Amino acid sequence: MKLVIVGGVAGGASAAARARRLSETAEIILFERGPDVSFANCGLPYYVGGEIANRDKLLVTTPERLRSWFRLDVRTRSSVEAIDPAGRTVTVRDLESGREYTETYDRLILAPGAAPLRPPIPGIDLPGVMTLRNLQDVDAIKAAVDGGARRVVVVGAGFIGLELVENLVRREVTTTLVELQDQVLPPLDRELTTPILEALRSRGVTVRLSQSADRIEAGPGELSVQLTSGERIAADLVILGVGVRPENALAKNAGLAVGPRGGIQVNEHLQTAVPEIYAVGDAIEVLDFVTGLPTQTPLAGPANRQGRIAADHIFGREARFRGTQGTAIVGVFQLTAAMTGASEKLLLRIGRPFRKVYVHPAHHAGYYPGAEGMTLKLTFDPETGRLFGAQGVGGAGVDKRIDVLATAIQAGMTVFDLEELELAYAPQYGSAKDPVNMAGFVASGVLRGDHPQWDVEAVLSEPLASRPLLLDVRTPQEFSQGRLPDAVNIPIAELRQRLNELPRDRRIAAYCQVGQRGYLATRVLLQAGFNAANLGGGYRTYRQFFPDAR
Amino acid sequence: MKLVIVGGVAGGASAAARARRLSETAEIILFERGPDVSFANCGLPYYVGGEIANRDKLLVTTPERLRSWFRLDVRTRSSVEAIDPAGRTVTVRDLESGREYTETYDRLILAPGAAPLRPPIPGIDLPGVMTLRNLQDVDAIKAAVDGGARRVVVVGAGFIGLELVENLVRREVTTTLVELQDQVLPPLDRELTTPILEALRSRGVTVRLSQSADRIEAGPGELSVQLTSGERIAADLVILGVGVRPENALAKNAGLAVGPRGGIQVNEHLQTAVPEIYAVGDAIEVLDFVTGLPTQTPLAGPANRQGRIAADHIFGREARFRGTQGTAIVGVFQLTAAMTGASEKLLLRIGRPFRKVYVHPAHHAGYYPGAEGMTLKLTFDPETGRLFGAQGVGGAGVDKRIDVLATAIQAGMTVFDLEELELAYAPQYGSAKDPVNMAGFVASGVLRGDHPQWDVEAVLSEPLASRPLLLDVRTPQEFSQGRLPDAVNIPIAELRQRLNELPRDRRIAAYCQVGQRGYLATRVLLQAGFNAANLGGGYRTYRQFFPDAR
Repeated sequence: MKLVIVGGVAGGASAAARARRLSETAEIILFERGPDVSFANCGLPYYVGGEIANRDKLLVTTPERLRSWFRLDVRTRSSVEAIDPAGRTVTVRDLESGREYTETYDRLILAPGAAPLRPPIPGIDLPGVMTLRNLQDVDAIKAAVDGGARRVVVVGAGFIGLELVENLVRREVTTTLVELQDQVLPPLDRELTTPILEALRSRGVTVRLSQSADRIEAGPGELSVQLTSGERIAADLVILGVGVRPENALAKNAGLAVGPRGGIQVNEHLQTAVPEIYAVGDAIEVLDFVTGLPTQTPLAGPANRQGRIAADHIFGREARFRGTQGTAIVGVFQLTAAMTGASEKLLLRIGRPFRKVYVHPAHHAGYYPGAEGMTLKLTFDPETGRLFGAQGVGGAGVDKRIDVLATAIQAGMTVFDLEELELAYAPQYGSAKDPVNMAGFVASGVLRGDHPQWDVEAVLSEPLASRPLLLDVRTPQEFSQGRLPDAVNIPIAELRQRLNELPRDRRIAAYCQVGQRGYLATRVLLQAGFNAANLGGGYRTYRQFFPDAR
Repeated sequence: MKLVIVGGVAGGASAAARARRLSETAEIILFERGPDVSFANCGLPYYVGGEIANRDKLLVTTPERLRSWFRLDVRTRSSVEAIDPAGRTVTVRDLESGREYTETYDRLILAPGAAPLRPPIPGIDLPGVMTLRNLQDVDAIKAAVDGGARRVVVVGAGFIGLELVENLVRREVTTTLVELQDQVLPPLDRELTTPILEALRSRGVTVRLSQSADRIEAGPGELSVQLTSGERIAADLVILGVGVRPENALAKNAGLAVGPRGGIQVNEHLQTAVPEIYAVGDAIEVLDFVTGLPTQTPLAGPANRQGRIAADHIFGREARFRGTQGTAIVGVFQLTAAMTGASEKLLLRIGRPFRKVYVHPAHHAGYYPGAEGMTLKLTFDPETGRLFGAQGVGGAGVDKRIDVLATAIQAGMTVFDLEELELAYAPQYGSAKDPVNMAGFVASGVLRGDHPQWDVEAVLSEPLASRPLLLDVRTPQEFSQGRLPDAVNIPIAELRQRLNELPRDRRIAAYCQVGQRGYLATRVLLQAGFNAANLGGGYRTYRQFFPDAR
């Protein structure tokens, strides 16, 4: 068996190591265009910020180790230029010598990755307009900041954009963040990103939403970025983080199919239409585990897993890629935002019926010092309760809850199952009713009909005349510090005695701070014959939808 | 519907609140013997240590709130003395006035909890010999420490015992910990507790294992605890943390069945043999979710859940308790130890076939600063791979992995499913291959036959003459700093060239630091025709089994 692998980072390196463990006799050649294999893409922004001080830390492994431990034929600075599927050969260019040669294969794994998008705007190729994908990119950005760049415009508020912004602020660089969507972190639902937006602004980052860079001009000693609005921002450096496109040229030129967004198409064994040719990692199109629809998720975890699976299948194992959930996480200024599975916006886009709930629990027992708040949102099937997706934002412990929910999604669990999760509780770690249990209670109550909920953004979009009465059941003190428009206040402790103050011919939307008292109020009102529901997630969810409301 | 609930802490208070949400018309009486309802048992040790400074924080809710929010008839300092199941009445004593009266019920929920065990040894009732179960207990302990107790003996190294020890050390109290078993944290497997034992000793705690207190004597101004060994330890205070026994007297006197360890027996709806009488919380016997056998797990999470389920069933809902996994966690001196599902010792005791694996990963990407180590152990079905249990010990992130694995156990996942978990990865939070994935890879490799493993404690118990050759594939530097007895060293990078140095007529047990290079070496050796396996978990697992080996 002669196995040739194109690309030596996450998916390619994983495939090579796995292949060697499965076969000591196979000939395994790993081609990598760059000088490094298996480097830590996800760490690059932290090297800019100095959190990772030693560049060598970014090298997860080296060509030398792959050779000595795994007896791999590692060829860096070697670009695979063409594939001949019929003849089972690849054409390789040695980027050092310029020499071209062909190499035969029995099996070929394509792991070429993805390249940063560079939108075709004037000035995009000016010096000082950079992207961040590999060690050479990060060297250039770090050199610019070390060399005195004090004003940076970051275009794109996705995961990498936000990590870059945090690290630039750590370097005391004046930073502007430009995002085409009306929110930061576009994969998440907008209301979940409000705390992140507020944290960015509170740390002095200038955020321009619903804007793109129209052109970039070189002035005397500086760049000038012109936004759609006409605003011009002076910068020493512009960094693009607007997404990636699959490196599919090699595949396309070989006649292999790519999807509408450019991902190489593969079957569940990660084989292309030519069964001897596999493809893995950021370059491929995969199935979304929840929706069953094609998607592209350029993430390290699935890439590693795919490399393993391709090698397994080549060496005769039963191995299938189950699809991706798009589990992702980012830390920004002590906050964490994370998601897994299907967001509300994705479900709306594909027209899939769903319900959603919000909870705002503390990350551990409230009676133990240091409890930090979080928001969790679940989306789920309105009939069966099957969990579609989860998102979280907050302080400590968001990562844990998203990982639990990612596991639940893979297992096909319902929101009823979440009620029963037996998670580890001591006061430093969680609560007797964990945030995930709480979300399960609320969602199950909605489905069982015990806990009818209306969505605050839907209620507030109704005409004023026919809108439900907004009943605030918090204390007068809480009410005085901020409330929904035109709300009336009856504290939960007085509600049963004051039911006669409420209309019987109008819907009543109860709410409190996070939803718990609103739920109890809803139960009281329903049993007293009112047409009532709880505003899911309470005042806090309202503030996340309408952060600028006064 | 008239519902009477006996006990107002976790299970009882949860049942009462749930019942009110389901029915505004029910009459609900909550009897509690003590002065408080729903206090934070799990926080008590941290009030002794001062981490929780304000005693009011320990009151999760108050009788007043239960009355005003939930319209509950809360009667504290009220002891239910007897049940008449035929007449559906309880006899209640008002502990303030001494008055006795009867109260009728339609449904009765027993949530009396459990009482600390006081072993029948001489001196057990001396002043200064205390237990920790409620606010009155913690007041007494705190008063003693505040009043100058400088030497404390804690008997019992379970969860509460260890939390007490940590908090006493925080108060600069000289602390001795006495434990009957040969390990701390008896619910866990011994080798997992080695880091905890070492942390206790490094913080100056005197630990006496395989010892019990034989007698306690009062000397002049101090107590003296005599151990089985004959050793006498002077103390100002002795605190017992040797377990609890279900408060079952009320149930037994009413003719309700209790199990062999005293737990009130209930069906899956939490009904006793008298269908109008339910029982929940620490007082009951439940099914172990993994083994299907009866067990008792006095934990807050299941108690709360059971209270909810009993109320649901009473008010006509379909509700079942699925059993418990015994998920538990403790923090001691920056370390965390946690478990869920079946331990190795439990599986051995019940004779259930199983396999086990160890991994020792970092809690997040190694290239990002601050990565802390952990040990994870899985037990699983040798045929199907179904996960039986998991244990973890280490620094940050142990809680997250145990919660993920607890979720996997509830879902009936196998170790093959763990390979595919798509968990949240950014360098501060995890790794592209999360510790749970790693454990899944190793366990799946064992079951697929790719990765044969021998257990280090089993190999070292074999007679020297027939024992496998111990092949250390780490670097000479690592080898020089500590190795298994009689091991030979061939670094992994040289192994393929030096196969001729190895015997073909003897088993070869390869090992490295944590198992990864040992796995690769095993693959090389097997494919070269040797009879070889990896020592699971490598040198680090060896050190956890044999911490005192030199």
